[in-house]
Parts: sequence; C-alpha cells; structure tokens
Amino acid sequence: VIVGILGGGQLGRMLALAGHPLGIGCVFLDPAADACASPLARSIRARWDDVDGLGELARQADVVTFEFENVPAASAELVATLTRLRPGARALAAGRDRLDEKRLFRRLGIATARFVAIDDAADLDRAGDELGFPYLVKSRTLGYDGKGQYRVDSAADVARIGAAIGSRPAIAEELVAFDRELSVIAARDEAGHVLVYPLSENRHRDGILRLSLSRPGDRADDAAQACIRSLASELDYVGVLALELFDRGGTLLANEFAPRVHNSGHWTIEGAQTSQFENHLRAVAGWPLGATAARGHAAMINLIGDAPRPPDVLRCGHARLHLYGKEPRPGRKIGHVTVTADSAGELAARLGELAFLLDPTDRPSLPV
Amino acid sequence: VIVGILGGGQLGRMLALAGHPLGIGCVFLDPAADACASPLARSIRARWDDVDGLGELARQADVVTFEFENVPAASAELVATLTRLRPGARALAAGRDRLDEKRLFRRLGIATARFVAIDDAADLDRAGDELGFPYLVKSRTLGYDGKGQYRVDSAADVARIGAAIGSRPAIAEELVAFDRELSVIAARDEAGHVLVYPLSENRHRDGILRLSLSRPGDRADDAAQACIRSLASELDYVGVLALELFDRGGTLLANEFAPRVHNSGHWTIEGAQTSQFENHLRAVAGWPLGATAARGHAAMINLIGDAPRPPDVLRCGHARLHLYGKEPRPGRKIGHVTVTADSAGELAARLGELAFLLDPTDRPSLPV
Repeated sequence: VIVGILGGGQLGRMLALAGHPLGIGCVFLDPAADACASPLARSIRARWDDVDGLGELARQADVVTFEFENVPAASAELVATLTRLRPGARALAAGRDRLDEKRLFRRLGIATARFVAIDDAADLDRAGDELGFPYLVKSRTLGYDGKGQYRVDSAADVARIGAAIGSRPAIAEELVAFDRELSVIAARDEAGHVLVYPLSENRHRDGILRLSLSRPGDRADDAAQACIRSLASELDYVGVLALELFDRGGTLLANEFAPRVHNSGHWTIEGAQTSQFENHLRAVAGWPLGATAARGHAAMINLIGDAPRPPDVLRCGHARLHLYGKEPRPGRKIGHVTVTADSAGELAARLGELAFLLDPTDRPSLPV
Repeated sequence: VIVGILGGGQLGRMLALAGHPLGIGCVFLDPAADACASPLARSIRARWDDVDGLGELARQADVVTFEFENVPAASAELVATLTRLRPGARALAAGRDRLDEKRLFRRLGIATARFVAIDDAADLDRAGDELGFPYLVKSRTLGYDGKGQYRVDSAADVARIGAAIGSRPAIAEELVAFDRELSVIAARDEAGHVLVYPLSENRHRDGILRLSLSRPGDRADDAAQACIRSLASELDYVGVLALELFDRGGTLLANEFAPRVHNSGHWTIEGAQTSQFENHLRAVAGWPLGATAARGHAAMINLIGDAPRPPDVLRCGHARLHLYGKEPRPGRKIGHVTVTADSAGELAARLGELAFLLDPTDRPSLPV
C-alpha cells in the first residue's frame, strides 16, 4: 500500500517511519525544498494548489491523507475525485472554520466555552458584554499554535484589536479559567470501529505545546471518550483524530479538533500499544486498528527552537530522543523527547533528570 | 553523526530506522542491487572487498560498523586504517573461526560443549571416540543459520561427511542435549560500560531461528551476564554483542557469539526500554547507552519464506509487524512479528492468536 501525504513535516516523517515496518510506503507533497520527511520516502515538490503535483500524488498513491488541516479545500476536493482521501473532505471542512467547529460541537452536545461571532468591530463590543473581559479573539480560519489570536483585556483594547483583525471573520471566545488542558486522540477504521487512547494532559506556553503526559485511567476518560466518539461518527471519520479539551472543575469544554495525528499524541510511540502514526496508516489503508491501551506512564517534552546535544539528553537512560532533521529556528518544533515509566512516581523522577530541557517557567508544572 | 554499515540487509534496515530519530544517518555498502536497507538511507553498491567502495564508505561515515560477521578480514582492516571501526577488527577476528572462538570461551572460563579440531579424515574417527555419536561437524569459518554443518550419527557416516568437508578445516562438537536454547545480548560503550538485556529463549528449526521469548528475571540471568561481560571486556568491545547459549540442567554452555545486533534481540524494539538497534548506534557513535530493562514480556516470531497478508497479522491488535521489504523466497527471513504483554500468561494468550504464523511443529513449543 502506498499512502500519499499532503505535507512533509515532522508528522509526515513519523508516519513514514511507522510505515516502513508495515510495508506501507509513503509519498509526500510539500512545497519546501527541505521538507523533513523527504529522507524517509519519495516526495513531490509542489505548491498545495498545484494541479499537476496533486495529480501526480494521487497517481502514485493508493490513498491520500494529510498532516495539516489547512489543506486548501479545492486541493482536497481535487484529490478526492482522483483517489481515496482519508479522512474525507468533509472532516477537513468541518474544522476549517472555528465558528462552524464550535457550532458542530454544540450540535453534538459537546460543551464548549461561550463564544460570539465577530463580523465587524461592533461585535467586539457585544462580545465584551456577553463574555466579560478578558476574552479571546481568533481568526475563524488558518490559525494554529496561537497564531492569529488576540486577548482583549478591556474595552480599551477593542479598537486596536479590531484594526488588527480588519475584515477577517473572527470568533470571540470566553477565556476559560481551566484546571487542566487535555486532549483525547482516537483512531477510527473504515468499518467504523473506534479505539481511543488514554488522555493526554498538556502544558502550553506562548500558544505552543511544551509538555504532554499520558493519563491512563484519568477520571475524565469516559467523558472525553464520549465526545470524540460522537465527533468521529458524525464526520464518518477514517484515521486518527485529536480533540483538545479544557477541564474546568470536572466539566470538559471542547476547544478544537485536528483531523490528523497530533503533537500531544507523540508519546504513543513508546507509551501505547500502537502509536498514533501506525494507527493512522492502518486506518487509511483499510487495515484493522492496533490496540491503544497505555504501556505504563509516559511524558513528552517538545524541543523548540534549538536542539540539545543528543548525548546530553541520552545521559538519561530512559529518554527516547526524536529529532526531526529540521534546522533550528526560534519557536520551531525540531524534536521531542519521551520518557516512560511503570508508575507516575517513577515517571516524575525520570522527568526530573530532563528538567533542563524545560523552560524554567515550565518546571514547576512537572508532575509529582 | 553518520554511521557507515557493511551490509544492507534487515539488520541494517532496522539500524537505519533507529538512527533517524536520533539524528544518526546511515550509509550502507552492499553488493546487492535490492539491499533492503537502501530505501532508508544512502547506499554504495560494491563488493565486500572493493577498495574504492570501502574507501567511499569510510569517507562518508564518521564511524563504520557491520551487520554480519563474515566481513573479509582485509576489508575490516582497510576500513580501520581509514576511520573508526566499531566493534574493532579484533572482535570480528575472534568470532571468525569456530575453533578459536571455542578456545577463547574456555580461556575466559566460559563453559562450552566438548569439541575436537578436525584437520583431516582421521580426526573424524577420533571425534567419534571422544564425543560419542551423534556429534556435529561444522566448518570453522563462514557458516551461519545451520549452513556448513553436518550431523554424524555413526561411524558409517564418517566417510561421506569427510568427503563433504574435504580439506576445509572443521570442528567436531558434542551434540548437546539441552533443555533450552538461550541468548544474551549486551551493549558496551566506549568507556567500557556494559548493559545487558534480559535473556532470550529461542526455538530453532532447520538451523533457523523461529521464535524468541524475552525472559526477564530468568534463573540463568546472572550466569549469562557473567559470560557476556567477560567476553565483551576481553574483546574491548564497542557496540551490541550477542552470545548463544545452551542451558543443560542449569549449566550454561556457550555455543557462539555474534559481534552485531542479533535476530534473537528483535523483540527489544518493543520489549525493552531501548532497542538493540538504538543501543548499537549509540555505542558506536560514542554516546551513552540507553536502559536495557524489559518492558513487560515479549515474543518474536520470524516470518520465513513468504509473508502473511498484513491485515491477517494485524487483526491481532497487539501484534507489531516488521516487514523487511524483501522478496519472498523459501527459507528467507522476510520479517518478524512481536507481541508484548504485562505477564507471561497474557503473552501466551496473545501468541495463541498468532499461532497460524508458526509451523505446526513449532506450535506445541509455545509457552503456557
């Protein structure tokens, strides 16, 4: 089976690494000359909307998937006319617009933070009245990792932020005073079977994920499973799906979903029976899914900006290093480190050995 | 770090897969056009004794290693003059000749089966007197997977087998009535630190490994560790080293060692904290070793000859499939399947789901 992948970044790279032992070959389409997946598989260098490139990808592949959700709708639709696209164009479309996404959650009975549609500057004032200050404003499309997001602290901010947004449609959201940031990741196969991974508990800073912890047996597990099963079914989803959640006093509020493998699931390579990458490939290839149960407790630390020297990380004999082959650059995700242990206590001790990888402001958030 | 590897078969392929996440690139030298490691890394197509090819390998790599022990001595020596060779030419040489190898074991106080050097046909008669019938005759060099081996059942066989061996120097060995076939695998770094994996218990048929089981906490663990630590130290070894042992009534008899990653250690990918492939790369790169402790219980089934359809294997949600990208051919190792579990009992149940992968004659040997 050959799987075509729109995007040749680190997610594509880890898909390719998972594919080789399964006999699943990958072929990537990416506009970048230095796409970090390219040493692992064939790649086609083309723009996301290049009709010839997309046609070549569809021709080489038995099924096409993607590693990022901002694939142009027309490109997805073109591919879907040429070969199988998994997950389908509908799953891509449903997550493209933050307002539509929130409305979908509501329709499925999945709780969210309160929100207000922002079509013009007057709506920002209305948002302040309805949501209170501070609140968040996000562009409805094309945002990721905190980009295109603003925080409105008071009525005095409204004019400035209204100007920054301009005529782009946006959404204002209640700033959730959450206790925990969680994500839940599921795989769904062509026959509709769904397997859900243990929850991830996540720490972000500056809008970028820093640390994820597996939470096997978490008290929020049942509620999170219900949310993602409902969403996966509604979207007739095939592949791996991730849903970000806030836990506020034991109530889960859905933030957004990603129709792809997810940074908060990288720990599944060592910390689950089958990794999210392998299960995504198995699902889109039409194969049975692998077990998603936890293997002990796991933590993943993102390496952002520049890389430590490998021996400095590997001095911790339980660290598993994953470099993506990307040039260091401020704010860029260039790798991650996973640690596993048989118990949460042992995990905390091992993470302590790797505290130097964390920004000082993140260290207090290490589990104990 | 770039690691040059003599040999681009499945062991090289799994080294390359382990290298990518560590930022360790591999470059292979192999005479075959279809070397199965080549989709994973650069490769140089050349004969084992091709001076230009070996020079190119040494030029491209920071350190050179090998995935098979029958590297010509002159090739190893040439590479060692051009760059670092890890493990060194001495480790290669020590295992090249079965008679020298047995004598080395004896010198280190490691027990072996009784043996007799065979230089001419008269020695075969002497072997019968000393060892009793049946006994084994093996060529002193270049044998693997049961090739170049003969069983002498009675004095009537001597003339025929003497003719088959001809003038090749050989060794006659007592046929050990063993209770178990074991192997022990260790990694040794440049500073001389040694980490030993849990024992593997192995089942062979027709001289080819069929099944390996991890045996964390086995009663023979201390004795096996002592053997391999002594051997690794004697050889001033750097990298992963495997030692095959017979367990006869609780006494370990060394059969042979392999100066490389080993088929009976493939379960370490899922069944140990750090795989043998990753630790070999870490050692030869001069980096610290990763922990070798078991992760639960593991079993590995070799896929020999032809491959099952992947979905048939993956229907067992705990099976991890490793195909090597090789064309099926009778007797050829084309992949393996690993299963892990928290307990030996759970492992046996999961292995039961995969019994169809085993020859009927092997099925009774599944653990219970």
